Amino acid sequence: MTAKSHKNWTDDVADLLRVRDGFVLSGVDPRSTPGYDGDKDDGKDDLSSGAADFEDYQERLFAASQSETTSGSVLLVLQAMDSAGKGGIVRHVVGAGNPQGVDVTAFKKPTEEELEHDFLWRIAKHRPGPGRIAVFDRSHYEDVLVAKVRELAGPDEIERRYDAINEFEKTLFEAGTRIVKVMLHISYEEQRDRLMARLDRGEKQWKFTPGDVDERVLWPHYMSAYQTVFDRTSTLYAPWHVVPADRKWYARLAVQNLLLQALDDIDPQWPDADYDIAREKARLAAS
Amino acid sequence: MTAKSHKNWTDDVADLLRVRDGFVLSGVDPRSTPGYDGDKDDGKDDLSSGAADFEDYQERLFAASQSETTSGSVLLVLQAMDSAGKGGIVRHVVGAGNPQGVDVTAFKKPTEEELEHDFLWRIAKHRPGPGRIAVFDRSHYEDVLVAKVRELAGPDEIERRYDAINEFEKTLFEAGTRIVKVMLHISYEEQRDRLMARLDRGEKQWKFTPGDVDERVLWPHYMSAYQTVFDRTSTLYAPWHVVPADRKWYARLAVQNLLLQALDDIDPQWPDADYDIAREKARLAAS
Repeated sequence: MTAKSHKNWTDDVADLLRVRDGFVLSGVDPRSTPGYDGDKDDGKDDLSSGAADFEDYQERLFAASQSETTSGSVLLVLQAMDSAGKGGIVRHVVGAGNPQGVDVTAFKKPTEEELEHDFLWRIAKHRPGPGRIAVFDRSHYEDVLVAKVRELAGPDEIERRYDAINEFEKTLFEAGTRIVKVMLHISYEEQRDRLMARLDRGEKQWKFTPGDVDERVLWPHYMSAYQTVFDRTSTLYAPWHVVPADRKWYARLAVQNLLLQALDDIDPQWPDADYDIAREKARLAAS
Repeated sequence: MTAKSHKNWTDDVADLLRVRDGFVLSGVDPRSTPGYDGDKDDGKDDLSSGAADFEDYQERLFAASQSETTSGSVLLVLQAMDSAGKGGIVRHVVGAGNPQGVDVTAFKKPTEEELEHDFLWRIAKHRPGPGRIAVFDRSHYEDVLVAKVRELAGPDEIERRYDAINEFEKTLFEAGTRIVKVMLHISYEEQRDRLMARLDRGEKQWKFTPGDVDERVLWPHYMSAYQTVFDRTSTLYAPWHVVPADRKWYARLAVQNLLLQALDDIDPQWPDADYDIAREKARLAAS
């Protein structure tokens, strides 16, 4: 299924970008725009009409949960190398929703307290409640990405975590959460340009830390760790999608479409009144 | 000060709407548009340019807090009778911000666990962190409004709470939080029309509960309880603003202006780089 509000898709983007058996990350071109037969201007138009649909779906989801018609919720997991555009997704895609029903959590380096618990402890606390849309800006996947590349945990522990993640996500899925896992995939060259642009602009310099370059030089190790993540944790109930992200407009449109599909899958309905409408009208008119 | 992006204010709206000694709620006309020399269309234009300013301020506030340049934050407290438009404020005013930096909490009837603690326990947990904008959709003021009207607490306890609220808000203020307290003030007749409209439309019926009419018939008691709230808790560090709200466009514009003033008061600055820019450019170029 393709979002109705997006006119220029030639194919089902969820299907095209989904990580299946045999998926090879290095085979994805970060500048490509799979399934989309339009340019940047078309993409802007489609994003804008998709935003209206997103808002509408979200309100229905929220309404349905208030009346316990659905326990559905959506969890968007965003993973990427620095500067790939996670912030832009939050702002331009998720930002179209009503802040009343959206929870964004940016997971940073774990605190002392968090490190005393299992890695999923801090994650589970931020899973979406019924009717809500939660966004993880970085996530439990850092615990098998940076943790692996930087050897913050031993190989046995990393192994254990893939299974723990699958179990955890299965539990969420069974409780009614649609999990949309996205890796924004930029090229090594594009990252250099974007980090350089941050260094060039006074109001962007706060987004840069010298650690960004330290991570960058480990690029091949990160790509390898991502490949293993895809091999081990792209499940039927929580598949990964690798979204080419050198073109920001495409990445935003693709993620919006994935979210719209998840919402359409829940298909939340306006709840019926659980009171006598005529009686309440009469009471109200008399007041 | 009046938001620069709002062209049609003739006066400082914060000043006009602020609750001072001698304020009388019944003297406020809910259909009025104090200080604004424009119509609904002008209001729409001003709201839209104000939204861009709001987003810009918010990003700077967030950036400044990331670099510990400021511990500033904003807390918007929204109180009102049913259907006065709190939801619209969240959606159309606060919704202009980046969801990454905004936290909206809707306080419902307290749970059993919450009732076992002091009334401020659940409130304090949701106060804004540095650089964040928090919105309370209903708040600790319910504990001196519905609690008083419905006699859920005795007179001595209600008395104690006014002082406890002032102490609590003073602590927040001293920690860098600008507190913007707003009562959206609609007329008794306007509420009837809006509730009737909810009963008339299938996708709005979930917003109505028969309890809304039960509360409505206590209108004079609520107005009296609000008057006491204003008398007791409009302080220099956390003044109340009564916003005429029969015209939604005016209420939204006025609240946006109050928020812009609070942000301007914090005046967050883009942080300076705490690293050697030339050195990092060289490292990046070499990578």
